[in-house]
Amino acid sequence: MKNRTLEQLFIEELEDMYSAEKQMIEALPKLIEQASLPALKKALSEHLKETENQVERLEKIFSTLDLSAKENYCEAMGGLLKEADEMIENQNKSPILDAAIIAAAQKVEHYEIASYGTLRSFAKHLNFDGDIIDLLQESLNEEGAADKKLTSIAEGSFFTNGINKDAAQTNSSARINQK
Amino acid sequence: MKNRTLEQLFIEELEDMYSAEKQMIEALPKLIEQASLPALKKALSEHLKETENQVERLEKIFSTLDLSAKENYCEAMGGLLKEADEMIENQNKSPILDAAIIAAAQKVEHYEIASYGTLRSFAKHLNFDGDIIDLLQESLNEEGAADKKLTSIAEGSFFTNGINKDAAQTNSSARINQK
Repeated sequence: MKNRTLEQLFIEELEDMYSAEKQMIEALPKLIEQASLPALKKALSEHLKETENQVERLEKIFSTLDLSAKENYCEAMGGLLKEADEMIENQNKSPILDAAIIAAAQKVEHYEIASYGTLRSFAKHLNFDGDIIDLLQESLNEEGAADKKLTSIAEGSFFTNGINKDAAQTNSSARINQK
Repeated sequence: MKNRTLEQLFIEELEDMYSAEKQMIEALPKLIEQASLPALKKALSEHLKETENQVERLEKIFSTLDLSAKENYCEAMGGLLKEADEMIENQNKSPILDAAIIAAAQKVEHYEIASYGTLRSFAKHLNFDGDIIDLLQESLNEEGAADKKLTSIAEGSFFTNGINKDAAQTNSSARINQK
């Protein structure tokens, strides 16, 4: 049986997040390519740049703690992205595919919101350097904003009808009623 | 290449969530058993009951749509729970393990918040029966409340020191400083 310290738990979470963000950088270009709506393509492209910055922030935290940046394969992000992949594979570009991409991306954002929230909380209780807490807070804020932007795109604040509404209208005659 | 309707996408998400909640029902007893703090054990036990109700709500939605309840294996929840399992295996019961359990549970809550949010949004745009939207909203509210309760336990609203602070104090002498 093992006993970890809170600092060890923090580092495990940091390594998990380092893997998660790197997986996201691999996955985002495919989502961007499959998206149709310009506002969605733009939001995802901007989030790719943010994700690259988030990786750099994690590397700064490793360095501040005098640790080498290390990936601990993030099973959860692996599952989230496998699911996203299944959702978009062999699908034609359409408002429905855009809705599916938004759904998948919001699950990822929420995973990252929970993870950065935990890291920030641990860092505070470990009395870590304020810079570390600020770096985590910055990424946490970006994830929250990315999630809200995707909701806006889905709900139609950025354009008249909203993507979900478009998607529903395209298929309003196709009610499924099967056992 | 395939074209799905928004309704098909809704049903896929519903089947995914049905699998996710059932996986959660399997996993929660182990987390409850491994937790030390009474407030955490209680919160997780209450959430197990809520999760059982959430499964029933999903079954009601399937039935309202005249569909058989069906599980579509949720890769994301599989990954989240595999990660939780790795985090708690071979660990002695301790405030650190409690902190790890809270971190894992909050990631799961956030996954479910994103999923129920998407389902509710799709249901609204599909002009589904108000009962379906209410059932989804009810589960969404429960997930949000469960996440907030876990934050309160971690941050110490429920008791004097807070679990993360306890965990940090236990190990304040064990600063890691390794390359």
